[in-house]
Amino acid sequence: MKAIIITIGDELLIGQVVDTNSSWLAEQCTNSNIEVVRKVTVADGIVKLNEILDECHDMADLFVLTGGLGPTSDDYTSEALRAYFGMDVQFHLPTWERIEGYFIKRGKIPSESLRKQAMLPVQITKLVNDLGTAPGLYHELNDKTYISLPGVPYEMKHLFTDRFLPIILPKLGNEKLIQRTFLTCGKGETDLADLIKETENNLPDNLSIAYLPDIGKVRLRVSGKGLDENKLKQDIDQVSEKIISQIGDCFYGEGKTHLVNVLKEMFTSRGITLGLAESCTGGHISDQIVSFSGASAFYNGGIVSYSNEAKHNVLGVSLEDLEKYGAVSEAVVKQMAEGVRKLLQVDVAASISGIAGPEGGSEEKPVGTFWMGLSIAGRETKAIKIYFNRDRQRNIEFITTFVLNTIRLEMSDR
Amino acid sequence: MKAIIITIGDELLIGQVVDTNSSWLAEQCTNSNIEVVRKVTVADGIVKLNEILDECHDMADLFVLTGGLGPTSDDYTSEALRAYFGMDVQFHLPTWERIEGYFIKRGKIPSESLRKQAMLPVQITKLVNDLGTAPGLYHELNDKTYISLPGVPYEMKHLFTDRFLPIILPKLGNEKLIQRTFLTCGKGETDLADLIKETENNLPDNLSIAYLPDIGKVRLRVSGKGLDENKLKQDIDQVSEKIISQIGDCFYGEGKTHLVNVLKEMFTSRGITLGLAESCTGGHISDQIVSFSGASAFYNGGIVSYSNEAKHNVLGVSLEDLEKYGAVSEAVVKQMAEGVRKLLQVDVAASISGIAGPEGGSEEKPVGTFWMGLSIAGRETKAIKIYFNRDRQRNIEFITTFVLNTIRLEMSDR
Repeated sequence: MKAIIITIGDELLIGQVVDTNSSWLAEQCTNSNIEVVRKVTVADGIVKLNEILDECHDMADLFVLTGGLGPTSDDYTSEALRAYFGMDVQFHLPTWERIEGYFIKRGKIPSESLRKQAMLPVQITKLVNDLGTAPGLYHELNDKTYISLPGVPYEMKHLFTDRFLPIILPKLGNEKLIQRTFLTCGKGETDLADLIKETENNLPDNLSIAYLPDIGKVRLRVSGKGLDENKLKQDIDQVSEKIISQIGDCFYGEGKTHLVNVLKEMFTSRGITLGLAESCTGGHISDQIVSFSGASAFYNGGIVSYSNEAKHNVLGVSLEDLEKYGAVSEAVVKQMAEGVRKLLQVDVAASISGIAGPEGGSEEKPVGTFWMGLSIAGRETKAIKIYFNRDRQRNIEFITTFVLNTIRLEMSDR
Repeated sequence: MKAIIITIGDELLIGQVVDTNSSWLAEQCTNSNIEVVRKVTVADGIVKLNEILDECHDMADLFVLTGGLGPTSDDYTSEALRAYFGMDVQFHLPTWERIEGYFIKRGKIPSESLRKQAMLPVQITKLVNDLGTAPGLYHELNDKTYISLPGVPYEMKHLFTDRFLPIILPKLGNEKLIQRTFLTCGKGETDLADLIKETENNLPDNLSIAYLPDIGKVRLRVSGKGLDENKLKQDIDQVSEKIISQIGDCFYGEGKTHLVNVLKEMFTSRGITLGLAESCTGGHISDQIVSFSGASAFYNGGIVSYSNEAKHNVLGVSLEDLEKYGAVSEAVVKQMAEGVRKLLQVDVAASISGIAGPEGGSEEKPVGTFWMGLSIAGRETKAIKIYFNRDRQRNIEFITTFVLNTIRLEMSDR
């Protein structure tokens, strides 16, 4: 089954809103073995919607529409579908009673303008919305399936999952789609391609590999289609095993996990704790760790020692070394890491100091020069020099990933 | 000028990646008086791209493509454009030399597979990419303009802003579009609408006002179109003046400035310094300050005192108070603010402690409860209680904005 996702709304075409609905829908379709062949965004309006339905008619079997089902004057989807299918419109009492009930439960009386949401094409199937007022709309015509959902994300997700999938899943064919995604850090796209060249060259016809690069990270995705689910799974697992062994220790996880979760697992399983001393990254690494709920299980905290005084006063970095070697130096990051490990009484402490740019570079230490320090209980303190130079924000993101990955690599072999 | 934005990539159609590029491009086009009539996402592949270019040919004057310019086997855009325009392909030495230079600067040698990115359609204009390897591609044919950009967001933005806009802006019609955007913090959309109701009701026909809400902030944009640029500017300035006086002290700047820049100006002009003690925000506020170059002029650093031990050991918060009132309390945030002001020897110190969720709430202190402390040299230490509850990430973002804005308001009247 082939699908086209049509998102409707002027706010999407002027860039006021990022469209997260269509990627969610695309993922759900893919997981149900519905191939999304196109996504389109069109303006509000009856004509625009009918035009796109005409244009796309022969390209797909399923048309998933979101948006334009609200009660205000710029919501046209129900009216557009009525016109497109040549249906009559009628006041749909069950929908209105549901809307009334929805308001009464909240101690309110529905405004008259909401009656519009119960004026619906007669022959269309109304999908009951438990989370909002607008019903979903479902229709089949000449082997084509149409589903229209509200634009509010949680209402859209509810109607798709709880109302639409139970109708459509039994109608789908037998071909299965299976995917596995491998997360890597520390190697670029081309380096990875070189490492798995042999696997890629001998890939079975029904399998494919995609590279999804990000700052400092690349995801490798293996996808396959086939009628025999077990055979397909075996093929994919076989290829996956090869890939994992070929890419080596840059591989850190599978699916949707994050480096922070890998560290969390590493640290909590050993009952050890982490602390940070950040200079140029200004709290970005700490922020990333804390953005995952449950970080307190292993992360004690960090010092953003942005000024030299903070490095000296809080972390005990020697003023002479700051003077002699500069804040971006092996000596200073080592003292920062050791200082914060002592101060926060943690088992592992990382530090970072560098020139994130665009200002602050020199001939000897150009923008993009970074030093990372790592102090681990019972081991010698280490320092690593890194050079990476995009814009300031990319530099900080890259270094954040680099620091997390370096901690992972250091801790993984003991 | 009408535009269609075409984003290319299988990863978008299977929902693995949320497409933020197209909304950024849509906003840029809108701001340049280019009307985006449609956004489309298609799969990787030469045929798919040529099909969509054919289909959309009559609907727009400008076609903005992103994605598919990388060096790997699933990148087809350059080849598709060559086929579409019937051009020859040739090795483009300047592009290759730039790619080589890009690698040499990083102490690396470019892999042979990157040569693909220098195999380019002969008659197409290559736009120099300062931030990556793939050049942008620009072509005009029969009154239509085609621009192809890499999918990596910062490369895409760089090529659109620095290479494409300078070419296209002079070609746009005589009607001028002028916009002014006013940044506010601390009031909601409907409150602002009430404040400027009179101005909005008496707005000249060629002007419009848009509300662009964000977490804790709302931007007010006044736009106008007209042939007489001076007259238009006058009208917009007149309306702007009214709006600024009506919205009061929630107004903090214009255009693209940020609260951090407002603070930077406030602090550096008085020669005073700032420090932070963050608990629940985990470094997010610090990260936001440091993400602006030149932050070191007023920002000394911060402590991410995520654990109670860190609050006590580093900031000197009383263990009895932590026990008695809990970490999210007036007493604790006051001691955190005072502690960090002393430790970092700064003039102004803010602290924050709260329950960002989804775990950690209680009957007495539900998720979304925050306390902010503020210690300013020569003044009594203050504490403010805040309640805000969306998801974890939104809560942290809201509180970050709230803290920066509270510092701004406290410092602006002295």
